[in-house]
Order: sequence, then C-alpha cells, then structure tokens
Amino acid sequence: MQYLLTIEYDGTDFSGWQIQPNARTVQATLEAALSVFLGHPARATAAGRTDAGVHAAGQAVCFRTPRELSPEIALRALNALTPDDLGIRTMHAVADDFDARRSARSRTYRYYLWNRRSRSPFWRRYAWHISRPLAIESMATAATLLRGEHDFSSFRAAGCDAAHPTRRVSRSEVRRQGDLVCYEIEATAFLRHMVRNIVGTLVEVGRGRRAPEEVVTLLAMRDRTKAGATAPAHGLCLWRVDY
Amino acid sequence: MQYLLTIEYDGTDFSGWQIQPNARTVQATLEAALSVFLGHPARATAAGRTDAGVHAAGQAVCFRTPRELSPEIALRALNALTPDDLGIRTMHAVADDFDARRSARSRTYRYYLWNRRSRSPFWRRYAWHISRPLAIESMATAATLLRGEHDFSSFRAAGCDAAHPTRRVSRSEVRRQGDLVCYEIEATAFLRHMVRNIVGTLVEVGRGRRAPEEVVTLLAMRDRTKAGATAPAHGLCLWRVDY
Repeated sequence: MQYLLTIEYDGTDFSGWQIQPNARTVQATLEAALSVFLGHPARATAAGRTDAGVHAAGQAVCFRTPRELSPEIALRALNALTPDDLGIRTMHAVADDFDARRSARSRTYRYYLWNRRSRSPFWRRYAWHISRPLAIESMATAATLLRGEHDFSSFRAAGCDAAHPTRRVSRSEVRRQGDLVCYEIEATAFLRHMVRNIVGTLVEVGRGRRAPEEVVTLLAMRDRTKAGATAPAHGLCLWRVDY
Repeated sequence: MQYLLTIEYDGTDFSGWQIQPNARTVQATLEAALSVFLGHPARATAAGRTDAGVHAAGQAVCFRTPRELSPEIALRALNALTPDDLGIRTMHAVADDFDARRSARSRTYRYYLWNRRSRSPFWRRYAWHISRPLAIESMATAATLLRGEHDFSSFRAAGCDAAHPTRRVSRSEVRRQGDLVCYEIEATAFLRHMVRNIVGTLVEVGRGRRAPEEVVTLLAMRDRTKAGATAPAHGLCLWRVDY
C-alpha cells in the first residue's frame, strides 16, 4: 500500500527536508516516526525538498507499507510520535504508481514580508523584516509580469539540477494585509531558490530601486547575476501541492 | 520627562512581566535596555502585569528620564538593545501625572484556541490546542452573558490582591476564523487569571459539558471552585490598552 500525507512544519529548527548526516531534518524526523509506528523501516518522499529554515503548511509526502492503515489511528499515532514543530494533517491511500514529486500538477509557495519599522516578535520566524515602506503596487505589477511560461535562468541558483530552466507560472501576486505583505506564486515546478530570488528582486522594486517592467528584461537576460539577491529562507512557506 | 511605550512580546521564553530574582522577565529586559540607552537606571511600569507565558501585542509601559528624547532615535536604539522576542512599536511623551496602570480606561485581551484535530506547528506557542470541534455558537452566547458589570469572584484566582471583585466588561465575544477560535474581552481592569478562568469555562460550554446560561449562575455563586479550570497561559495575549 502507498499513502499520501499532508504535513506542515515550522522550518526554523530543521535543516530542511532532506536527510543529511548529523542534521535534524524533516525527512529523518518523519521517517523515524513512521518506522516506529509501522514496525518496519520506512522511506518518505516529498513533493518539494524545502531548504533549511523554509516552512511548510501543505507539504505532500508519500510512504509505502505492506500494512493496511486506518487514517484516523495513523494520524493520531504519527502526531504523537513527532515533535511539536511538525504536524500531520491528513492521510489518504494512493495508487501504487502515484509519485509525490512527479504526480504533482502544481506547487504553491507563499513568501511573507513584515513591513513595519519595528520588528514583530510573532512574525520574526515566518517573515522577512523590511523596515521601510514598500511600494506594493509596483511589486504587484512586477509580480503579474512573471505569469506565464518563461525561462527563469535569471532566478535560478547555482547548483540547480533541473534539466531545463523553463517553468509555467499560473499565479504570481502580491498583497498587503496590514503590516504583512504576502507574495504567492503557483507553478508546475520550481527551480532551486527560484521563489527567494524572485522575492529579492520584487523587494528591490518595492524599494524603488528597479522599475516593475525590469523583470521582463531580467527574464530575457537569462543571467542570475542581473537579478536581485536571494531573500532569506525564513519568509518562505510551501503552501500547498495540487495533484 | 515621562514617556509611554507600546510594546509587544512573545511571552514563551519570559517569566512574565514583573522583575523576579534569577528569571528572564520582560520588565528586567526592558529596564536593562532603557538604562543602557538613557545612561541612567530606569524603572518601567506597565498597564498589565502579564503572567509567565502570556503574550502582548499592545502592552503599555511608562518610564521617566531627565532627558528629552526623539521618539525616532529612541525606538531604533531600544529595538536594537532588546532581544528578538520583544519589540517596541511606539513612543510618546506623556504628562508627569500619567500612570500606565491607573490612567488606563480599559484593557483588551485575546485568547486563541486552535480547534482542529492535528496541532499546528505555527500556532503551538500562541493558541491552546483543542482537538474536538467546539460548539462556537454556544460559546458566543455564554460570552455575551458576561458583558456588563458583575462580581467576577467565580473567575478570580486565589492570591488576587484586588480590593474588590467587581469589573465592568464592555466586550466579550467569541468568533471562529478557520481553525482558529478567538475570544476577545475588554474591561476596565481584570482580576488575577480572570480571562484564563473565563476561557476554561467557555471551553466547557463549547464541549457541551455546560449550558451557555450557566455562566449567569456561576457569576451569582461567587465561588471559584464552581467554574471551569484555568486555561493555559500560552493562548493569552494582552491585545491593547486604551487611555
């Protein structure tokens, strides 16, 4: 049997999703809980391998077991076996050829900015603090220009192992909710650091250092050195995965 | 000169507002920053002495200094001199006879409940997790019945040093926002643990263990042993103070 979990985590104290020696990772933590509950070693595969410090509200994870499980019992047990900064929301049986990564139709990420002079003790873990007022309308215009199918080489980190740099972005929007600014982007898949590199550039637009239309030029340049710096990991959250 | 600060803090790692030996308290942390910035020992007095683990989004704090301060410079300096879980939002000069505690017209507290089967890694510090669905309408009815001037002895902790147990509640409401349930209460002043004791009782109403109208009987009984248990500190937040 194969099962699909929806999990969420506060990435602050995790060294990202993927198992690494001598590091507290989400995959290692979840696999340890699964192995105890199932009574056999278990492997967990995720829709998106989030980096160190990145959060997830709707990460999708698959695992296999010869056992037939009751979701109700499994959810209670897995939540009891995992630490407080990781939560398992839902569980469903899926077909044997289902693949958490390859079967995903789209991923949605959110990036939060805390845009007020004084920092927020409550958002310090989940939003990048930008003290000076950002020009949200300019950022929203720039965000809109990223929609559609583009070569995102200018927003692709060195070391990205994707076969090609073209991605289809179906949603790209900036909105303000009080002192919080949220950037939401949905795409078939993402290149390495793509969202954080886009946010770094959008913030430069919001600060008035770049015109919104410059993102079109940046896309055409296909040159990472021309776009903005990488925004910090802690503002990013894997919001949902659609199948 | 006397100044009024609006501050916020994540109460998780503080042993409450008030200075105590060998404990990390908000008052001690703030007074240390004030003393460094002002160049002389400073005393901070707050509108509400929050307990260990209780948060504040709008705590009001006064301090005195012979110096005339620029709010802009003071805010930047104080935020630089305080740790991440404490933030100073605003600063205003106030009259010499102004008293952070006695001059306050009302205080507003919020209590957050996380009402979903699985816990939330993001709300674990700020909301009391109640797994089973709560009957919000019953809780809202009970909350409404607490409005007005009442003797709140049934919701008053042992050791409360208030002169009399009567308080005027001008707002008392429960609302659901997705998986989050927020109880908001505004009153001239509060008895010790009053909000947490009310929430403990409201949750019993939400669980169907008490009828909403029972809060009227409880008020009349003036007996702490008859009302619900004290809700945990970490769901409570001093939301604002009005002058």
